[in-house]
Amino acid sequence: MSRIGAWFVGARGSVATTAQVGAAAMAAGLVPSTGMVTELPLLAEAPLPGVDEIVFGGHDVATVTLAKRAEQLAAEGVIPHGLPRILAAQLEAADGRILPGAEDGEPQAAAIGRLTRDLRRFRDEHGLDEVVVVNLASVEPVCEPQPAHASLDALRAALAVGEHVLPTSSLYAFAAVEAGCAYVNFTPSTGIQLPALLELAEERGTVWAGRDGKTGETLVKTVLAPMFAMRNLRVRSWAGTNLLGGGDGAALADPQRREAKLEAKDACLPSLLGYRPQMPLHIDHVEDMGEWKTAWDHVSFEGFLGVGMTMQFTWQGCDSALAAPLVLDLVRLAGAAQQSGQHGPLDALGFYFKEPAGSDEHQLDRQFVALLRWADTLDPR
Amino acid sequence: MSRIGAWFVGARGSVATTAQVGAAAMAAGLVPSTGMVTELPLLAEAPLPGVDEIVFGGHDVATVTLAKRAEQLAAEGVIPHGLPRILAAQLEAADGRILPGAEDGEPQAAAIGRLTRDLRRFRDEHGLDEVVVVNLASVEPVCEPQPAHASLDALRAALAVGEHVLPTSSLYAFAAVEAGCAYVNFTPSTGIQLPALLELAEERGTVWAGRDGKTGETLVKTVLAPMFAMRNLRVRSWAGTNLLGGGDGAALADPQRREAKLEAKDACLPSLLGYRPQMPLHIDHVEDMGEWKTAWDHVSFEGFLGVGMTMQFTWQGCDSALAAPLVLDLVRLAGAAQQSGQHGPLDALGFYFKEPAGSDEHQLDRQFVALLRWADTLDPR
Amino acid sequence: MSRIGAWFVGARGSVATTAQVGAAAMAAGLVPSTGMVTELPLLAEAPLPGVDEIVFGGHDVATVTLAKRAEQLAAEGVIPHGLPRILAAQLEAADGRILPGAEDGEPQAAAIGRLTRDLRRFRDEHGLDEVVVVNLASVEPVCEPQPAHASLDALRAALAVGEHVLPTSSLYAFAAVEAGCAYVNFTPSTGIQLPALLELAEERGTVWAGRDGKTGETLVKTVLAPMFAMRNLRVRSWAGTNLLGGGDGAALADPQRREAKLEAKDACLPSLLGYRPQMPLHIDHVEDMGEWKTAWDHVSFEGFLGVGMTMQFTWQGCDSALAAPLVLDLVRLAGAAQQSGQHGPLDALGFYFKEPAGSDEHQLDRQFVALLRWADTLDPR
Amino acid sequence: MSRIGAWFVGARGSVATTAQVGAAAMAAGLVPSTGMVTELPLLAEAPLPGVDEIVFGGHDVATVTLAKRAEQLAAEGVIPHGLPRILAAQLEAADGRILPGAEDGEPQAAAIGRLTRDLRRFRDEHGLDEVVVVNLASVEPVCEPQPAHASLDALRAALAVGEHVLPTSSLYAFAAVEAGCAYVNFTPSTGIQLPALLELAEERGTVWAGRDGKTGETLVKTVLAPMFAMRNLRVRSWAGTNLLGGGDGAALADPQRREAKLEAKDACLPSLLGYRPQMPLHIDHVEDMGEWKTAWDHVSFEGFLGVGMTMQFTWQGCDSALAAPLVLDLVRLAGAAQQSGQHGPLDALGFYFKEPAGSDEHQLDRQFVALLRWADTLDPR
Repeated sequence: MSRIGAWFVGARGSVATTAQVGAAAMAAGLVPSTGMVTELPLLAEAPLPGVDEIVFGGHDVATVTLAKRAEQLAAEGVIPHGLPRILAAQLEAADGRILPGAEDGEPQAAAIGRLTRDLRRFRDEHGLDEVVVVNLASVEPVCEPQPAHASLDALRAALAVGEHVLPTSSLYAFAAVEAGCAYVNFTPSTGIQLPALLELAEERGTVWAGRDGKTGETLVKTVLAPMFAMRNLRVRSWAGTNLLGGGDGAALADPQRREAKLEAKDACLPSLLGYRPQMPLHIDHVEDMGEWKTAWDHVSFEGFLGVGMTMQFTWQGCDSALAAPLVLDLVRLAGAAQQSGQHGPLDALGFYFKEPAGSDEHQLDRQFVALLRWADTLDPR
Repeated sequence: MSRIGAWFVGARGSVATTAQVGAAAMAAGLVPSTGMVTELPLLAEAPLPGVDEIVFGGHDVATVTLAKRAEQLAAEGVIPHGLPRILAAQLEAADGRILPGAEDGEPQAAAIGRLTRDLRRFRDEHGLDEVVVVNLASVEPVCEPQPAHASLDALRAALAVGEHVLPTSSLYAFAAVEAGCAYVNFTPSTGIQLPALLELAEERGTVWAGRDGKTGETLVKTVLAPMFAMRNLRVRSWAGTNLLGGGDGAALADPQRREAKLEAKDACLPSLLGYRPQMPLHIDHVEDMGEWKTAWDHVSFEGFLGVGMTMQFTWQGCDSALAAPLVLDLVRLAGAAQQSGQHGPLDALGFYFKEPAGSDEHQLDRQFVALLRWADTLDPR
Repeated sequence: MSRIGAWFVGARGSVATTAQVGAAAMAAGLVPSTGMVTELPLLAEAPLPGVDEIVFGGHDVATVTLAKRAEQLAAEGVIPHGLPRILAAQLEAADGRILPGAEDGEPQAAAIGRLTRDLRRFRDEHGLDEVVVVNLASVEPVCEPQPAHASLDALRAALAVGEHVLPTSSLYAFAAVEAGCAYVNFTPSTGIQLPALLELAEERGTVWAGRDGKTGETLVKTVLAPMFAMRNLRVRSWAGTNLLGGGDGAALADPQRREAKLEAKDACLPSLLGYRPQMPLHIDHVEDMGEWKTAWDHVSFEGFLGVGMTMQFTWQGCDSALAAPLVLDLVRLAGAAQQSGQHGPLDALGFYFKEPAGSDEHQLDRQFVALLRWADTLDPR
Repeated sequence: MSRIGAWFVGARGSVATTAQVGAAAMAAGLVPSTGMVTELPLLAEAPLPGVDEIVFGGHDVATVTLAKRAEQLAAEGVIPHGLPRILAAQLEAADGRILPGAEDGEPQAAAIGRLTRDLRRFRDEHGLDEVVVVNLASVEPVCEPQPAHASLDALRAALAVGEHVLPTSSLYAFAAVEAGCAYVNFTPSTGIQLPALLELAEERGTVWAGRDGKTGETLVKTVLAPMFAMRNLRVRSWAGTNLLGGGDGAALADPQRREAKLEAKDACLPSLLGYRPQMPLHIDHVEDMGEWKTAWDHVSFEGFLGVGMTMQFTWQGCDSALAAPLVLDLVRLAGAAQQSGQHGPLDALGFYFKEPAGSDEHQLDRQFVALLRWADTLDPR
């Protein structure tokens, strides 16, 4: 039986903590697998590593322990009360496998080297067959293009002379590729998606997937927009407002980071509709909402004889509870892909992302069908 | 080039009037085909009769003229102001093809005979290749089962002795089958769906489709419910309230008719989810809403670790504007099916209905794929 | 310093438990007084008993302990986790003061006698200056009028011969009046509001208030409807749907009890608007909502030149968290009224009720002004 | 009987056109007075000029005729179809009284002189007892403070040397004061509210009122926020999104103008609550919404024991239909005030404004009571 490692960048954040608590709780038989797509009967035959076979580790710049974060999440209603105490031993062990993340001042070449060694040691110490690195860190500001991004040679040259050319997320992506890990980007940050890093990934045969987990408002959009399209109803405008609390919200209070997020959210509608309606979109940080998120969308559309009609929806979700099971899915799926000898962007995982790498398909049901078909092609372990 | 007839039961109702005005306006190049699925590029190759090739006629117990109804609908914002005047000649002609519907006191055998003759004459007078009868009349109370419904012999025997055994919608369905027409039931009424009539339809090789057009709240349900299912999110409850004005609302103010409607609306969720959540559902007649309809749905669902979340939506639609283009679609599709020599229930048209005859599939995108595939099989004319 | 007793009918229900936990937590300085109107600066001068001067007791047919109920409410998010444990001693003491409620089989005269003795003993044992009985029990079915309700003599005669003529809530009201307590009805049940009991209350100079706490949807109505009226905007229809979980919801799943509730909710709009718009109103029991309640209201209104517009609102409240502080308010206010020598219905407390006894005023701000003015007239203790 | 003139700045805009069409339609007995507060029975005794006694005129830079604008508004559903044709004569006459507005290049002293002469001629030609100038022009960018604004002398000196120191709205306000008219500012623009102009107004005994009509989202806020305050419920955040079409929306697409509007909208909550919750607020221009406006507000609040709850509302209004009758109210009220010999800011008209001049009161019902009391003090004519 294969052993698989999940290495979380941002391992003490809300999503990573929820994923680790949830995996431990599932392994202990304490909770059902609600929210995990890989636990659907339709995927029961897929040769995926078990949730209880995953060893967790990660990088984080935060130092609060996993157990403490889990208690905070329980107080917010994300994790059942009592669970952190029951799983105290597992959480302590997992916390011991979290290492310091990349610091701002650190020379980037050195940082990449250190992170790469961390990943290799993790694999060796735990005898892991595969390691999947998942970026769960806070969203970065939009990445400014630089000449050093254009090719691997240019990038290596810049790093060699101590230039600070990579966004932080790309340091981890570089390390993941160097260490022979699979790489998944659950955030809108750059990660592996620079020409230089993709060149390296191609060289090493890296399996990767991304970008930006599709968990809430965008998820709904990718089923509603096709509905309008299939019925030949013309969407005139699609306005959205997102109220976010917590760390995610705070990061997004920074206009540049918000911009990065908004770009990711913007991609699907024009693709699904075949034209670009007016689509004002806002993200607000509302502190009191904690781990919760409320999105309101207002769709104005036109029917027969030009009659205008509207649809509104309000989505009130807990982002960590929506994201964590998908992260576990992605660890299993990317791990299995790597074991099956695949490489390059896993377009069949577009189902999970706002900006599906390697695919232009945003329609949820088609993405789901693609996922099921692809899962059938995985080598039995 | 083939000519096709559309025969509307309830030909002076809101939907039928909107369909006739819209078809005339499209034929005159005055409006685009928004809302018509058969006008999507994906169906451009399908060998369907043109909207301008359809001759309209119908039955109705109402006597207000089509032109007058069109003016009323313009005042309600369903039809652009000015259009009824521009299309006055066409509407007058169409109105002349509307004959008196079945009266309550009329012996049923006689009524069926009369309606059948009306249909035959319509086809002959206009030299039509095919006639599609579409039920657009107000919803009936739930039909009580009767022994005479069980077989064609039993039904004929009962009718022969003057028994009043059929709901009104079934008189028209009987006539449609007798006259060799295709039959489409856009309402939740019984129509052709009695064993005795299905036996007759089988005998005659009738093409038919139904039941109850999927135009608003249910349409949305059939894309949202699969979203929850694909993501393994458990729906705990799905509550709905529908506020309806106009004639439709008034008919539904009658508890028995409402019951019929609610049953139709109830079918999809358990099928789409694979279990039956709590699903309280209300229909209210709110007079001031006129031709408009507002539905509010509240979905309570459970994610990872049992976290409860909610989604709400409000749909504000104009039923006639949503239904009329679909009715034109169905005339074209059922007409083409008949011309292709098909018979029996057209399960490929499940895309259009709340209770798809001949199919258990409620998921909108799968229904759409099935429709496209089926359209590919139609014989070129 | 005066001592005051609060006697809850339904003392182990959600509202009563929350009120007792909250009072204890406030007395211990653990929580602020959010939600208590009597703690507003505007009422700081009113000569009201302190929250920490209230001794709690009550009747209930349920036997689960207060501590256990408090834990359940903490699990539902109504009470902060940890609080029940900290207040364990107080809750145990309060639980010891809860006595068995009236049983269905018990002769009514005997029940009234027993309940009256319970109340007297409570006052004597704890040396209380005033006792306020508050009805917090589940809503009863609509009370059928009976000849025995018409006068005190008729009622006494019927009870004397063992007739079962009173709804249960009226047994407690009878006992409250007999024992010289103030009486507050926070539910839509009958309570004191029968001619026979009002006669007795008049005789004894009882202070009383009611009926049906105004905590959510109706609260909002009583500020929005005046807004439309003040702006001369004509409300055409006001539709409402209420989704309720928990015990309240379960009780209301019974159509007769729901009827009682709906009647109470129906009173305010025609009074506030001066006419009766269409106002369909639903209450649904949705189990998974637990202690939470969601109301959706859709208001269709008409402005200048007959233009139709709409307003919708969704209220997502925790009924116990809304009701409990108001119950503490009412204990203080009714206790102070009794001490001031007042008697009869306290129309100045209409601010708290859906069906304000002794008043036709439903407009919230006018009710608030009346409350403040009345509080100024209370005798200093 | 007194004759009164209403002089609209922006006389061909949506609000002004609707007001003029509505007044003519009311005078002709074609429509009821829905939406006009001065037509409430409570104000029946107030000595106000009749709607049919108002002569309309105004300035505008637009040249499309009133009749044409009325037709456009009818197509948008703001004005009943057919009305513009019936009132063609009145609209043509009113259009003849609309003069060219201030041009950007025009020296400001000259512009003020011209506008003043226009106002005087209007009064003289029509033998008007009073003229009320109402600013209904598009919102201006936030006005930058200038030394010339500080005193009348400074302003006159600056204008004398040809400096361009006043925002356009203040040119009209200056002219209104000079010409002895009452002045009402229904927009968030500066208008009369500069120290220099207030000095002049004081000198001349001008009656004036403002600022920014309270017609939709803010109106609702000023009844809901007091509800939370009266119940001692703590508002944690109040987020709002406004989707606006039409000319108003287009003007607000300009960030600086939007800023001016947002400031006006921002004023009420902190005043009503006594503290400042988080309150992200957006205004989006959504072209397809035409004359319609949709606001969504999300209120997060805290009750007893810190329990968090939410309320959301969606307001779908037609701004012109809401504003026009209030404009007619203000003409009548300001006219009557002037005739009663009042001067200075009419704080009793705060009921109508987002930023009530001369008052800190934002609570709608208190504003209404103040209006009624003030109306009682008006001299009978």
